[in-house]
Amino acid sequence: MSISVQDHEDTIVALATPQGSGALGIIRLSGPDSIEIANRIFKGNDLKGQLTHTIHYGRIIDKEEVVDEVLASIFIAPHSYTGEHSVEFSCHGSSYILQRIIRLLIDAGAHPARAGEFTQRAFLNGRLDLVQAEAVADLIASDNKAAHMAAMNQMRGGFSDEIKKLRSELVQFASLIELELDFAEEDVEFARRDELKALVEQIQVVIAHLIESFDLGNVIKNGVPTVIAGKPNTGKSTLLNHLLNEEKAIVSDIPGTTRDIIEDIIHIEGICFRFIDTAGIREARDKIEAIGVQRTHDKMKAASVIIYLFDLAIETEADIKREIEKLDQLKIPYIKAGNKADLIDPLLIEKLRKVWPDMIFISAKHEHNLDQLRGHLLNIIHLKDFHTGDVVVTNARHYDSLTQTRQALSDVLKGLETGLTNDFIALDLRQALHHLGEITGEITTDDLLDNIFRNFCIGK
Amino acid sequence: MSISVQDHEDTIVALATPQGSGALGIIRLSGPDSIEIANRIFKGNDLKGQLTHTIHYGRIIDKEEVVDEVLASIFIAPHSYTGEHSVEFSCHGSSYILQRIIRLLIDAGAHPARAGEFTQRAFLNGRLDLVQAEAVADLIASDNKAAHMAAMNQMRGGFSDEIKKLRSELVQFASLIELELDFAEEDVEFARRDELKALVEQIQVVIAHLIESFDLGNVIKNGVPTVIAGKPNTGKSTLLNHLLNEEKAIVSDIPGTTRDIIEDIIHIEGICFRFIDTAGIREARDKIEAIGVQRTHDKMKAASVIIYLFDLAIETEADIKREIEKLDQLKIPYIKAGNKADLIDPLLIEKLRKVWPDMIFISAKHEHNLDQLRGHLLNIIHLKDFHTGDVVVTNARHYDSLTQTRQALSDVLKGLETGLTNDFIALDLRQALHHLGEITGEITTDDLLDNIFRNFCIGK
Repeated sequence: MSISVQDHEDTIVALATPQGSGALGIIRLSGPDSIEIANRIFKGNDLKGQLTHTIHYGRIIDKEEVVDEVLASIFIAPHSYTGEHSVEFSCHGSSYILQRIIRLLIDAGAHPARAGEFTQRAFLNGRLDLVQAEAVADLIASDNKAAHMAAMNQMRGGFSDEIKKLRSELVQFASLIELELDFAEEDVEFARRDELKALVEQIQVVIAHLIESFDLGNVIKNGVPTVIAGKPNTGKSTLLNHLLNEEKAIVSDIPGTTRDIIEDIIHIEGICFRFIDTAGIREARDKIEAIGVQRTHDKMKAASVIIYLFDLAIETEADIKREIEKLDQLKIPYIKAGNKADLIDPLLIEKLRKVWPDMIFISAKHEHNLDQLRGHLLNIIHLKDFHTGDVVVTNARHYDSLTQTRQALSDVLKGLETGLTNDFIALDLRQALHHLGEITGEITTDDLLDNIFRNFCIGK
Repeated sequence: MSISVQDHEDTIVALATPQGSGALGIIRLSGPDSIEIANRIFKGNDLKGQLTHTIHYGRIIDKEEVVDEVLASIFIAPHSYTGEHSVEFSCHGSSYILQRIIRLLIDAGAHPARAGEFTQRAFLNGRLDLVQAEAVADLIASDNKAAHMAAMNQMRGGFSDEIKKLRSELVQFASLIELELDFAEEDVEFARRDELKALVEQIQVVIAHLIESFDLGNVIKNGVPTVIAGKPNTGKSTLLNHLLNEEKAIVSDIPGTTRDIIEDIIHIEGICFRFIDTAGIREARDKIEAIGVQRTHDKMKAASVIIYLFDLAIETEADIKREIEKLDQLKIPYIKAGNKADLIDPLLIEKLRKVWPDMIFISAKHEHNLDQLRGHLLNIIHLKDFHTGDVVVTNARHYDSLTQTRQALSDVLKGLETGLTNDFIALDLRQALHHLGEITGEITTDDLLDNIFRNFCIGK
């Protein structure tokens, strides 16, 4: 039994839902023999000959014993995630039962799926390009609005479409130049050099834009590394705890869906801020920073944004001025936050506000103005302009390929300007096409695929 | 819109798969408006008017934004788990996405489901009786073969069927006796007393058998509390570690399905043995037991079975004899295990074997004869006779109701023998019927249901 779209002879099986107890667990089969193998352990309707996208109630049988009562969903090739025949068993969510059913399916002829093998098959069967396949993993890992939107746009093809379109235009020119090489002795020019130059320049603009977006993409995917700094006893740990506690209250408001709280992260309008070196803040209770300026400096340098706390109840204007001069030298965006503002004379606040109009006046202890602080965090890293539909590069592999494409195209332009011979230009064009093709998977190697898919979870 | 089988006006929603990241997550809706609510956030085929047990590809939309690409499974009442209209969304398994979709469904009119509410509705709609509903939770929690079989038998009705049959026979007699009460002045006898007595006695036999099975059921559900004991330095921690390490190797042989290793548990032919007070063994490295005999005693008394280690390299026959005399006083099944058997003269082993034919000779360090030890564990608690299809009471609530039924029936018998008047016999019969009915849910109260279902997970 073999279907034309399928490149794979074997049928794979894995648990598709998270480990642990739940109401349901899904076991997924994909490959030419999925339905036959599923049928061997299933008692109910005959799964063979059923329509695609239909669900069938039955029992999983191990010899005489009923292992579970399940629903079997049937997907007929090519109408499945992988493009192959596929069966999903919806079982009772006991680890014991799920493990036993997977064991039964393996005994009935299925192979345990490798990490990412379902998605890899979807790619190899042309259901997804490589950028889309990678977006699936990002989508599953996404834990905030921005990361989710970036992954969703990528999965829905926004990014690949642009790359593919540019590449196919470039391919036309490349093939004309290759053709010229064949007629080298006749000195013909099929590819108009001015048009090629214009296209390459246009592509460079797009690629530059994509490369630039990686800074944003990286921050979206991994969170904005944020540091709370300031002299000892300015209230850093109090501020951190209040920010995190409010976050916990926000994320746990839907019963039964409380996600695992990731320590020391807050979300502001869908952007994730990751507080670094908070252990230091907590354990040392502000004392560690007395040890040395160097240490504080190193810590702040790893940040994309710093919340710098001044203790208004103690520090003088001159103190603050000295600290701000040092902060400016760091060349890292920072927020001036005057803490304990509730303890001091409003007139003093007015005075400070005149000197530093961008200072915010908070009380970490009484949670005053923390909303304003959050607003500043968002502003300072220019993320609030990120909208649904924006194409953003979040993947280091794509970033590398884009950088290499830019280099090759810049060589093409140089060649055109300095009147290099066709064979050199053709070589650089091929390089550019290769790197562009790597992104979407029009050009792949086994190593590349292995590298990509081994980072997936099993079952995806 | 309202369907006759449905007692519930509202539509509930919950995550049905475990928390955490995975390839897939399932969100489940049940109630009269399931399909309409699902349709409000779903872009693809119109979900209204679709056949039951069909699957539809589409997108979850939040205003303009695509939240996820999903499969929607449609179940038309009464052909669903709950007996109501139901929709299941199969989504990408990101906590963020799942939480957002649940939020969208709540905004579209669904209510967050309470713990066990899907199964409670299945019960209220007559899809399951109460014993079966309780078995669903046990099935999900089952982590070994015996617990799984007991729960599966219970869910498949083996236990309830027996109770219901007995009860309905008893109901006939009860109603005849109630009828006699109506004709009390005419002194008629509709219910033959000898037949009633025979039936009650027959029921008592069945109930006694079920009550007896609870010892086994309890052990199946919660594991056999097992203690390793012996004098200091006999090798107790070595034995424990070797037994547990082999267990880890056994349960982690299917890629991607490694369950969370529950500490200090081993499974022998599907029966779970739970080692108690192993922390003591590990931390104190045998020294703690030198502190006092009392402590060792308390520990052993909590066990259902004891593995008692003798250090054959040191202890004399007289030593062993003294210890065995003490052990016999405990009245708890125990295994005599002679450790370090590899270090002593085989002739000595022969001699000991003649004195204590049931002693096993092991080397914990070299893992000699551990299989034999496991075999003894299984034998000693008489669990190996437990087979597929055996009806076993595992639920404390059922045990209580059965005990109360037995008491009421014993009062009926006493009444019949001592010639009590009809009204007393009728009263006792009503008691018995009440308690039997509580088991399967033919008689319920809101409190009872709340108590049962609040121990379920949300989404089931």
